[in-house]
Parts: sequence; C-alpha cells; structure tokens
Amino acid sequence: MSLVVALDPPLGVDERKWCINLIDVVGGIVQGFKFGLPLIVKVGVRGLKDILSVSNREGKLLIADLKLADIGYVMSLIVRSIADTGINTVIAHAFVGVKGALAELSEACKELGINLVLVTRMSHPGASDIMDKVFNDLLKIVKEVNAWGTVLPATRPDIIRSGREFLGSSIKILSPGVGAQGAKPGEALCAGADYEIVGRLITRSKDPLGTALKVINEQRERLRSCRGS
Amino acid sequence: MSLVVALDPPLGVDERKWCINLIDVVGGIVQGFKFGLPLIVKVGVRGLKDILSVSNREGKLLIADLKLADIGYVMSLIVRSIADTGINTVIAHAFVGVKGALAELSEACKELGINLVLVTRMSHPGASDIMDKVFNDLLKIVKEVNAWGTVLPATRPDIIRSGREFLGSSIKILSPGVGAQGAKPGEALCAGADYEIVGRLITRSKDPLGTALKVINEQRERLRSCRGS
Repeated sequence: MSLVVALDPPLGVDERKWCINLIDVVGGIVQGFKFGLPLIVKVGVRGLKDILSVSNREGKLLIADLKLADIGYVMSLIVRSIADTGINTVIAHAFVGVKGALAELSEACKELGINLVLVTRMSHPGASDIMDKVFNDLLKIVKEVNAWGTVLPATRPDIIRSGREFLGSSIKILSPGVGAQGAKPGEALCAGADYEIVGRLITRSKDPLGTALKVINEQRERLRSCRGS
Repeated sequence: MSLVVALDPPLGVDERKWCINLIDVVGGIVQGFKFGLPLIVKVGVRGLKDILSVSNREGKLLIADLKLADIGYVMSLIVRSIADTGINTVIAHAFVGVKGALAELSEACKELGINLVLVTRMSHPGASDIMDKVFNDLLKIVKEVNAWGTVLPATRPDIIRSGREFLGSSIKILSPGVGAQGAKPGEALCAGADYEIVGRLITRSKDPLGTALKVINEQRERLRSCRGS
C-alpha cells in the first residue's frame, strides 16, 4: 500500500522520543514519514538527525514538509543543511516560480539525491483567494522543473483526477487530508494519488499500529472496489 | 534611520557566535535584525533563544523570516513555538489567502504581541511566473488581515511606490535587496519604504560597524536629496 504517516507531535511532549517511538511502532508497515516545519523549527537539524537515526527507516520516504517559498539560494541552503539528516524528500511551493527559485532548488535536490515535491493546491478555504485561480500554471511549473511529485488534497478527488491527467503517470501525487480532515482511506488512491498522508488518525490513536493496519486494509478494499468498477 | 541587518551566517561558522557577535557590534546603531529560515532550521528554537539572549536587543525589530506558507494551524503553531525566543515580527506569504490560513495566523500574532509581515512581491525573475500577476490581490490580503507590514524589493522603487499608494501610510514596508542585490541605500526609503534590509554588505564586511555607519549616512543623504527635490 501507499501510506505515509505525518509526524506532528502534540504540544508538551518530548518531540524526539515521540517521533522515534512512532517510527518504531508503525515503521514496519508504512511507506514513509512526513515531518512538518513546526517540528523541524523546534528541534533543528540536530534533532531531526537524532529522530532519523532510528533503525527501520531504510527504503522509506522521509519527507521534510518545509513548504519552502523563497529564492533559490535560500531554499537550496536549507535543503543542503538537512541533507545529512536522512531526509530524502522535501516539499516546496510551486508558486514561487522557476528562474532564480525552483530551478536552483531542483538542481540542488538532484545533486543531493533528494526528491522535490511541489505544492500546487491546498485544502483550506483561503486557498481560493489566489492559489486556486492559478492551479493550471502551478501544475505547469511542476512539469517544467521536472519535480518528483506534487501535493494535492485527498479531500478533493476531482482535483487529484485532473492533476493526474495533466501530469501523466511519472510524477507522484501525495495526498494529505485523510482521516482527521475528512477524506476516507483509499479515496485519493482511487482518484490517482500515489501516497496518502495520514496524521492524527494514526498518531493520536491509542493503538497506532492497529489503526495503521486498519487504514491499510481500508485502502486495499477501496482500491479493489474502485478498480473493479 | 531605518536599517535592519539580515543575519545569514556563512557556511562553516558557529552560527550562534557569529550572530551574537554581529548583534553586539552593530546593535547600537541599527533598528533591527532579520533571521532567515536556513539559520532557524539549523539551530532550532533553542539556538534562536540563545542568540536573542544578548543584551542590546531591547526596542529592536527582531524578525523571523520564516516565509510561512501553510494552513493557519501549522503557521500558528510555529509562531507559538518561537514566541518566547524574543522574536517580535514574523514573515509569511500573502498568497496562501485568508480563511483557514492568514486569518488564524493574524489572530495568533495579535495574541502573542508579534508583528505580522506578508510578502507580496519577490525580486527573483521567476516571481513573474505567478506572483507578479496577482500582486494587487496580494496587497488586498495585507489590508484584509490588517498585517503590520509587507515586504517589497528595494530593487524596484516603482513597486514600492505603488504598494505605498495602495496600502496607505499605516502599514510598514520592509525592503530587502539593498547592497549585494544592487539597490543603493536610501532608494527604497525615498520610494516609501519604512525599513531597508541589508545583509552581506554589512555582515561580510571586514568592518561591519563602519559599513553600517556608512549605509546610514548614505540613507540620510539620499533621503535629504529626494525629499528636497
């Protein structure tokens, strides 16, 4: 299956221990982990390195969800500074454009062997103020810089479908919004996503492993029914 | 005068010592300091707190240039986590829109007594791909969330003038791009900016204090001539 767990520690916990514990518990059955900017700002590069020094991270997607949106020099500097933590995928915003921004970041990522994922659509209501109006232009930028993937909300299967149609099959689609935000496991996969990102539903569960297994089963069932139909 | 120094440490230095030293050297004559995301990611909240524990930071603008571009919950979480470091100003992107994003961030900033500054225009060539096309909409968002200020490039006095005209006099304009990026000290102030942000010209100088004084003198001279004309 194609499950990535978003590790966003609640306030008041020891962030490193919390993350390490969850990676240990569900690492055997999921495809990757996503680390948000709040965590990264809190613990810094060294903290991230501690977290990723755990054993069962091999072969997994380890995503720094930095939502970078700066000039190329600054974005590349950040990616270089986290490159030796074990992170193999970073998220930036397509809207900053190519020249002097994503062109440089894309080069730096290639050089460092890091997957570049670009946000082209967000799910909050305010995304309609500006971002939704330029969705097609943002998708074009994903193609232009030959990004490894894009982020599209699981709550909008119609958007995932049109993103997949535009981008073709080689660019990965990562979909957050499964669980707490309302999308059901498997829905985004059925619409064409490659990975579903699940956070609180699993990480706040009393039984994270059991819940992750349940999510995977639901993904399988849903995929079976949507592919069968 | 209205000089903010961007503290972007070069690779290979002890970032904390480098920042603390520069704050110590030029803190007496400048209006503030800006800390970039590469530094913050590198040293984390604790490192930022160490840096800002220096003596002569009182009354200064202490800016975390996070270029936040996420949902409101995530952006607020980050601002909350750095609120006790001494940072009193944060930079986010206007383009993420209001509802579910900047509305929440704006509330969190008010509650924490932190100035919110929104990027509405960047200076790299790729900014013309998307951002420049929606410049007026981005300025409207600055007004709508009643942000404390906006970021406009010192290299484009024409843009600063139209930003000032649109925003009125109560919203601050912060202008990076002075020095290494080509704008001359005072140019942005003459066009209507409140603060000029200078980085490498001062921080990479052999005599940061002397260079900062020179910049301030140039700002004064230019302001005198542009206001006199």
